Amino acid sequence: MKNSLLAALGALALPLPSMAADPPPPATPNDIVAAAPAADWKAIAPADLMVMELARDAKGKAQRVVIQMMPAPFSQGWVDNVRTLAAARWFDRTAVIRSQDNYVVQWGDPGGDNPKTAKALPPRLRVMAESEYLTTYSPTLFAHRWGKWRSDSKLEIVPATAPDTNWKGFSDPYASAFSFVGSFPVGMRLKNEDELVPDRYTGRPRMATFVVPKELWPVHCYGMVGVGRGLSPDTGSGAELYVVIGTPPRQLDRNIALVGRVIEGMEFLSTLPRGTGPLGFYETPEEYTPIVSVRMGSDVAGLPTYEYLSTESASFAAYAEKRANRKDDFYIQPAGGVDVCNVPVPIRRAGSGAPAPVGK
Amino acid sequence: MKNSLLAALGALALPLPSMAADPPPPATPNDIVAAAPAADWKAIAPADLMVMELARDAKGKAQRVVIQMMPAPFSQGWVDNVRTLAAARWFDRTAVIRSQDNYVVQWGDPGGDNPKTAKALPPRLRVMAESEYLTTYSPTLFAHRWGKWRSDSKLEIVPATAPDTNWKGFSDPYASAFSFVGSFPVGMRLKNEDELVPDRYTGRPRMATFVVPKELWPVHCYGMVGVGRGLSPDTGSGAELYVVIGTPPRQLDRNIALVGRVIEGMEFLSTLPRGTGPLGFYETPEEYTPIVSVRMGSDVAGLPTYEYLSTESASFAAYAEKRANRKDDFYIQPAGGVDVCNVPVPIRRAGSGAPAPVGK
Repeated sequence: MKNSLLAALGALALPLPSMAADPPPPATPNDIVAAAPAADWKAIAPADLMVMELARDAKGKAQRVVIQMMPAPFSQGWVDNVRTLAAARWFDRTAVIRSQDNYVVQWGDPGGDNPKTAKALPPRLRVMAESEYLTTYSPTLFAHRWGKWRSDSKLEIVPATAPDTNWKGFSDPYASAFSFVGSFPVGMRLKNEDELVPDRYTGRPRMATFVVPKELWPVHCYGMVGVGRGLSPDTGSGAELYVVIGTPPRQLDRNIALVGRVIEGMEFLSTLPRGTGPLGFYETPEEYTPIVSVRMGSDVAGLPTYEYLSTESASFAAYAEKRANRKDDFYIQPAGGVDVCNVPVPIRRAGSGAPAPVGK
Repeated sequence: MKNSLLAALGALALPLPSMAADPPPPATPNDIVAAAPAADWKAIAPADLMVMELARDAKGKAQRVVIQMMPAPFSQGWVDNVRTLAAARWFDRTAVIRSQDNYVVQWGDPGGDNPKTAKALPPRLRVMAESEYLTTYSPTLFAHRWGKWRSDSKLEIVPATAPDTNWKGFSDPYASAFSFVGSFPVGMRLKNEDELVPDRYTGRPRMATFVVPKELWPVHCYGMVGVGRGLSPDTGSGAELYVVIGTPPRQLDRNIALVGRVIEGMEFLSTLPRGTGPLGFYETPEEYTPIVSVRMGSDVAGLPTYEYLSTESASFAAYAEKRANRKDDFYIQPAGGVDVCNVPVPIRRAGSGAPAPVGK
């Protein structure tokens, strides 16, 4: 039964033996990623990676977590702070202090709640304002593949493909629309504009809806790394970080800064025993997982090169479209839509061929 | 710093000391749940619970998982099979055999992939058809609180509250709309109908959009329990079950049967070490977590009574609305929308007062 189960739950990239008489099965999202040309893969600069070494596990196995930093123009003040903290080796000998099921795992200074025990922060950390949780749209940020861009940066909304399908496209309950900047998902606020345009067939004027992107912000998907803060929006320095380990808590978007995304070693954080104190904080120091070191990737010898599938490539557009419309060996009912967190940007080690499957 | 972090990341139900001079802080979703009257809580019949005892952990601690079964009219053939398997004690001495990060943990017969080693299934298991992944709408199923029902079962869509907000309401990228049946979230396919109705102010005819629900189906949120199957839609008996441990894999909706939801002990499954084989299957029997027993709740002595917050109560409507529009001590930017999996139906042990916080 396991063989059928291997095919079940998502028809992952396990090619079936080819049979000359049968046509090949329809492509899955992972098939599309595996077939992407080399030019569609973009290397991530080591300076944009952060490597966190947790204490070895009970069997003596190393536990390395690799985080890709949030690219400009998002959250750059907090990203700068995290770089400053890593350069000062401030995170070394801190710990994972919280694990709340279906929410977050969090790390930082266990003594940080008491001024007498708190570890001194390095100088020159920036204090960020609430306005920096989002950024103003610029047409150079990305190519949006699910609409028709015009030279004036307006996007013509692509209508529903067919009224009898359930097609919802790339809609988002938390934003006007979503897209990707570099390898990061973003939410967008759009301004609708109705305009008379010439109909492509008759040449007569017809009403069309365009949208003008106004603001963008990074979104809370599984594996995203954010900056813990207090009640005041400007209180998060970057010295307390968390990672999402469950349902994307999208209500935190625009309320808290995201500084990166775990691209390897996520399982070392997501499987930590849940804390039994309020909000999943551990109740005794014995439960903490010590953090041995945190370094920027450029300071780590022998680090592999990581690559992401360019979100502006045709491969990515086909992959996203396929994730919204699964119909293959396993899937019988295409969803006709997808949410931004269910289009994870594929990551691989350079030279490794197809990346690790993205889970389904 | 921990005190501020306790308030951070969601302003959970930790009441601040009241200060006579200050007005109370705005209610959070958890405040609303905590204030719900007793009549809004509905007991779950023990016969609708399934109790799975995993082997004790390394420290000798019991690991009990409590699952609420999917109510009629959804997935009832598979639910019957799971009841039959539990009654036959078939799951006893099976094991957790798979743990794939950000996807599922799965259990069943480790020898099930080989006819020579497979455990014999009890007789009279039902074979279910693809059509049973969804059900036809009936107006007795639920009260929809986010539109105006008419006597002919048509729902008038409530328009956006204000054009300058980002309000997306209770939209869903995977379905026309979502709602709840009992304590379970459902997706719906609706049929749009435009009609001329008298304007409430002028009395003149105006165009209004109504919807007629056509079909409903259970959805894949965190903690939902489903039936593993092979490539053919009718191959899942219920002897292999999985639970969602990451981003809701909503593309599986209507492609695979959901039979329940973990309501207690989820952390014993979600923190299991991830398997290193394809799809997160464990590669050696030593990695399995043995399942000691699986019994229906009516066969478990001393089981607590569990209750859920009625999804047809005013408390639940207020809670859902608040989850879509967080603005309180911590939240500065209400999302203006929410997805179905971010409105988890609150569960508590009877007599315990406020339930465990739902995570954010």
